[in-house]
Amino acid sequence: MTRPVVALLSDFGTRDHYVSAMKGVITKALPDVQLIDITHEIAPGDVMEAGWILATAWRDLPEGTVVVSVVDPGVGSERRGIAIQAHGRRAVGPDNGTLELAARGSTDGEAVELTVRALWRHPVSPVFHGRDVFSPIAARLATGVALREVGDTIDSIVPYPIHPPQRRPDGSAAGHVVHVDRFGNVVTDIGKELVPRGEIAVGVGSVVVGRLVTYYAEAETDEVVAVINSSGHLELAMRGARAIDRLNVKRGAVVEVRPAR
Amino acid sequence: MTRPVVALLSDFGTRDHYVSAMKGVITKALPDVQLIDITHEIAPGDVMEAGWILATAWRDLPEGTVVVSVVDPGVGSERRGIAIQAHGRRAVGPDNGTLELAARGSTDGEAVELTVRALWRHPVSPVFHGRDVFSPIAARLATGVALREVGDTIDSIVPYPIHPPQRRPDGSAAGHVVHVDRFGNVVTDIGKELVPRGEIAVGVGSVVVGRLVTYYAEAETDEVVAVINSSGHLELAMRGARAIDRLNVKRGAVVEVRPAR
Amino acid sequence: MTRPVVALLSDFGTRDHYVSAMKGVITKALPDVQLIDITHEIAPGDVMEAGWILATAWRDLPEGTVVVSVVDPGVGSERRGIAIQAHGRRAVGPDNGTLELAARGSTDGEAVELTVRALWRHPVSPVFHGRDVFSPIAARLATGVALREVGDTIDSIVPYPIHPPQRRPDGSAAGHVVHVDRFGNVVTDIGKELVPRGEIAVGVGSVVVGRLVTYYAEAETDEVVAVINSSGHLELAMRGARAIDRLNVKRGAVVEVRPAR
Repeated sequence: MTRPVVALLSDFGTRDHYVSAMKGVITKALPDVQLIDITHEIAPGDVMEAGWILATAWRDLPEGTVVVSVVDPGVGSERRGIAIQAHGRRAVGPDNGTLELAARGSTDGEAVELTVRALWRHPVSPVFHGRDVFSPIAARLATGVALREVGDTIDSIVPYPIHPPQRRPDGSAAGHVVHVDRFGNVVTDIGKELVPRGEIAVGVGSVVVGRLVTYYAEAETDEVVAVINSSGHLELAMRGARAIDRLNVKRGAVVEVRPAR
Repeated sequence: MTRPVVALLSDFGTRDHYVSAMKGVITKALPDVQLIDITHEIAPGDVMEAGWILATAWRDLPEGTVVVSVVDPGVGSERRGIAIQAHGRRAVGPDNGTLELAARGSTDGEAVELTVRALWRHPVSPVFHGRDVFSPIAARLATGVALREVGDTIDSIVPYPIHPPQRRPDGSAAGHVVHVDRFGNVVTDIGKELVPRGEIAVGVGSVVVGRLVTYYAEAETDEVVAVINSSGHLELAMRGARAIDRLNVKRGAVVEVRPAR
Repeated sequence: MTRPVVALLSDFGTRDHYVSAMKGVITKALPDVQLIDITHEIAPGDVMEAGWILATAWRDLPEGTVVVSVVDPGVGSERRGIAIQAHGRRAVGPDNGTLELAARGSTDGEAVELTVRALWRHPVSPVFHGRDVFSPIAARLATGVALREVGDTIDSIVPYPIHPPQRRPDGSAAGHVVHVDRFGNVVTDIGKELVPRGEIAVGVGSVVVGRLVTYYAEAETDEVVAVINSSGHLELAMRGARAIDRLNVKRGAVVEVRPAR
């Protein structure tokens, strides 16, 4: 009596009909589906942003959810289409680095290359696999079938392009700016387990942030603070203002967190 | 045989995964739910805009709808989480002025402070009560349980920050600019029952608008007109153009309507 | 056991409550409905853009879908409200050129003027027929009733404002730029059946594009190519860049495709 859930992530924007075409295909195959948009505002072709947003959304989606993830600048070329399973969810999309981060640390990990063409929508447009390949496969997987029914098992997939953060022997850790959200909060890939206990100092660009707070309203006006965000990562923020405008860093910039003193 | 409806309003935007996290939590608890987005484009932390949009959407949502309303700059701090009931609908969110306007004039009004922590999603992130407190409570309320099952009755909630419009003894009325919509229409809080019959003059900023029309296409090119909009409020508009660019007023500006002559 | 599907297209944007008001009305009438947004980002009043996007989305929606299409600068005036049927789908909206292109070439074509006022939501706001006329009628049609139950048969509707592309005796064809998508791809109304076989040259503005490729990644860096897009139309594109910035043409500009020599 559970209802299938398909979530969607893309760089298609919301001005064109592309997202509705995918939803039309999914709804036709699976009339009872619950559709959840993660975002369609990924910058065109931005594999890094897609990978981060997908991994962040992953655990907040109900178990059994299938995500159609279509940030696919190589559509039609030799890049593989894949489906993955990890942490009780699945995703379908191009094998270009967008899916791997969501699967890290999973004990139920599995991946297939999409090879069962009989399940695709024909004729397949070489420029819209989101509609003709990934959506019908997602609808199929959302009925609960095994990954093996839609493709052939593969051993590895293209990794998310940013190296994982590192813990150092002195108790500090180094990671990266991976995302800037709508509020101008600067999100890092440093998980809370890498943040030293007690007072800390966070170095990013030429700035050192010295205070870890629990929620945004604790910050003073004009103060940049560190916070553990809702996905458990270290984030730099201000109260009612955009930390990114103050820090002036780019995605990929190194962030260092160490015990204060 | 009715299906639960949960509507969502926030300042989360559509670039991040935040809205999908709330929808994931709601869908997990209530697989059959119909989700309706009101908007996620409220300016960050803009309590006034959220309050107006919520009140305007309120009566157009089916009876029994529960709204998750999360414009919450004080998340994690001492501000209360509340649920309200009014006019046959309910809403869940922070007690910061965003919910009160929707409840005005109701005969079934009721409000509780959210205190039944066992119904929340744990661990509760101090920076995302939308996901961990308000969404699970909304899903619960959408099953039809009484407000008292999720919290303790309270007598008053934080009011919407703009004073209600006033009728004056001379038949005129004064209110405020409360919203500018996508078309550049300038929306006031002056309800149609406050607009004098017959010819009127509307003063806003340094401009006097002298004609009340029934629909936009009645306006002449380049003419600013008054109209009763679809929520029953006085609005200033142009035909195929943005009245706000001509009137050059800010939200909160005083608007006066009086009989012409 | 099929579930009714209602798709929505408008110029309402996503900042205001207008779209949620339509969804509220539809959901109230039809609790089991699946709602699919086509787009709400049509430029205000842009009949041409609405007509193209609707026609492009049309065949990708499940058969039986009803589209509420509300780009309606003449709302409240004498323009008719209509419902159409074509290619197994239906649409409801103003008769202003937005619906006709979707219906072309259909063998099941039918149209009615909306006259059965008893099915509307009362009182009808003269500025929001999307909520009070088109949404309740769409919900009604989505239950499967005949068009004749909501209005009186009419013989013709207002045509989409761009003339159809023409094939010429010499094997060339001329059409127009009809849309620019999120990726900056320049979409034409020249269907693939009008594109000569073999090598072609596409003239647009002062530029001649000489290569037809199958997918975007085939293009060289900095090269503008032609491609048959996912709706079967000739499109001008670049790899990882915006063709519109290079071509510098406006919607409505003439595009010519001919055999290369």
